[in-house]
This record gives sequence, C-alpha cells and structure tokens, in this order.
Amino acid sequence: MHPIIQHIHKITAGTVTDALPVLSFFEAHSFRKKEMLQEEGKRCVAYFFVVKGCLRLFFTDTNGVEQTLQFALENWWMTDLDAFRSGKNSGYSIQALEPTEVLSISHGDYEQLLKSNALMEVYFRKVYERAYAASLLRIQLISRIPKQAFYENFESKYPDFLQRIPQKVLASFLGFTPEYLSELRKNRKQKK
Amino acid sequence: MHPIIQHIHKITAGTVTDALPVLSFFEAHSFRKKEMLQEEGKRCVAYFFVVKGCLRLFFTDTNGVEQTLQFALENWWMTDLDAFRSGKNSGYSIQALEPTEVLSISHGDYEQLLKSNALMEVYFRKVYERAYAASLLRIQLISRIPKQAFYENFESKYPDFLQRIPQKVLASFLGFTPEYLSELRKNRKQKK
Repeated sequence: MHPIIQHIHKITAGTVTDALPVLSFFEAHSFRKKEMLQEEGKRCVAYFFVVKGCLRLFFTDTNGVEQTLQFALENWWMTDLDAFRSGKNSGYSIQALEPTEVLSISHGDYEQLLKSNALMEVYFRKVYERAYAASLLRIQLISRIPKQAFYENFESKYPDFLQRIPQKVLASFLGFTPEYLSELRKNRKQKK
Repeated sequence: MHPIIQHIHKITAGTVTDALPVLSFFEAHSFRKKEMLQEEGKRCVAYFFVVKGCLRLFFTDTNGVEQTLQFALENWWMTDLDAFRSGKNSGYSIQALEPTEVLSISHGDYEQLLKSNALMEVYFRKVYERAYAASLLRIQLISRIPKQAFYENFESKYPDFLQRIPQKVLASFLGFTPEYLSELRKNRKQKK
C-alpha cells in the first residue's frame, strides 16, 4: 500500500476504499540532496508530501542569512501554505536535505481531491489540527523575545486589536514592558 | 441567523440546511471582563467560539510574569488545542478582556458534531488551514532569537532529527551560529 494511503488510514481511522482515484491527483518526484523544490519569490504551485527523505523550509533574511523555519520527514506535508492557498509567490524556499521522494499536488487538484472524497476532508482537518496545535507550542517556546518588526506587522494587520486590547496585555503579547510599548507607540505616532 | 452558522456559511461557501442540530452541540456562556474561562493546569474541557467580545490565551512564566500568546475576537476559536484533543490539563489560561459571549463545546461533542455533518469537516479543515498558515508567518516573525530551552525541547521531542539534519541547517533553525550549537551539544553530552 502506498505510504500516503497508509497515512490516511492511520490518521482518519477510516479506509480508502479505492486508492487509485486518490493517488491520481498526485505526481511523484525525486530530488537529489540539496536540490530545490521551491524557490523563494517564485510562484507557489505545489504542496509536497514526503514519501522518503527530509525537506526544509527557509527564507533568506535581510543580512543574507538562510533562516530555517520547518523540517518535514516521512509523512509530513510542506509548502508555503498561505501562498499555496492564494496563488501568491512563495515567501520561502524548500530544499531536500537528503535524497528525497515526494508526492506533489497542485492547488486545483488539492481542491478537487477534497471534493472527491469525504475522507480527505477528515484527513486534512486532522493533519492541520495537529500541525496547528504543535505550532502553538512552538510559538510559546520562542515568543519571549519578539521584536519591533513584530509590533509593526501586528499594527498594520490588526488595527482593531490595538484599540480593544489593554496596553499591559498587549505589551506581554509582544514581550515588551508596558513602558517600552508606550514609548514605541509615541514614537510611531510622531513619525506618521 | 446565529453568528456561528453565518461563519460556517462564509468559510465553507456551503449551507447548513438545518441550524438547530448544529447549535445543539454547543452551550452559550457569558463572561464578565477579566473573568477566567480556563485556568492553567486544570483540565481542558472546552473549545470556545467567540460570539461577541475578546479573549486572550496566556501562561505564567517562571518569573511569575503572564505571557500572552493569542487573542480571539468575534468568529475566532480558542482553546489549548493539544490539551483539548488529548484530555490533558491545559498549559494555558483563557481570560475575557471585555464582556464576552461564547459558544463552548466539549471534546466528545466536537467529535460527534464532526461526524454528524460533513460540512463541519470542511469548516474545521478550512479554519485550521488558515490558522496554521498564519502561525507559520508568526513563527517567521518571532523566530530569529530562540533560546537554549528551545533546543532542549527539540532534542527531547525529535531525537531522529538531530541525527539526520546537518549541523549548519539545525543551527539556522535554532537561530544559533554553528559554533555555538557545537559548543552547546558538547556541554550537554558531558552533562548526561
């Protein structure tokens, strides 16, 4: 049985009655060690399922240093999910760290696959539920020293929040002292 | 129409043909400003959908300082998802920042709800897909200065990774220089 079908069975505790229609939505690809599957800034056209090997997702920061955000071993999924969903250019590169075999699926086929088989909705709901739960823990572990850039992003994305959330709570979210946050906001108001 | 039914329609582009069975899985609760919905260390028994108001999710760090990780406004979901799924004690507290109305659902009812209506699988798959995509961006924004604790957690959770991933890539994932990582690993080996 193909590893992805095994994985669907394991995660959903359900059975894919006919694997061929599911597999027909995917293409199989092999990559050499260090080969790129996706380049930062290019259109994000595929979602990868790791059959064998290991991928990493990274971006190049303003100092030219590669910053790795995620790894994917066997049975893990990887893409710039935001870009994949929206058809935007990828904010990240994806590279094979070992000789790697993947299944890839385009966004159109991903949507068709979900429509074609109710078990696939259950599967992806559970895959994302786990991934999202894990990401919350990761955010906890690394979030104690955020940066001014994080505040600026937050301000531009969620202006409503800044009106509704008490200064002290917002400061703790950002990892600032209330005094530092107050100073920062004052300076930003003067700039505008 | 109830806000949660409106939200399901909006996210799925589908229609809940009969809202009453869906709503019957939930309980409605109101909380005063600053009231606690969930306390850290107590059993996590509910998942909250914000009908009106604002929640925050936080933990108290080793210095006794409250660290806020997430906010939830109208139409957002909030719980310690890992604890909710596993029945463990919550690693976080949840508090109302404004007078807040929520729908709450237990884990058993959540599973029944998903089984009862295929549209709910689509809904939660899309909710998590978005949330997970957003969390990747958040991790990018705050991940450049992780800490030794992050390495130790990573080491205990994913020992396989440490064998398979090149030192240089692992260092960039952790936000360390390769030299610092090498030093850290040497010290930890000596401790064991």
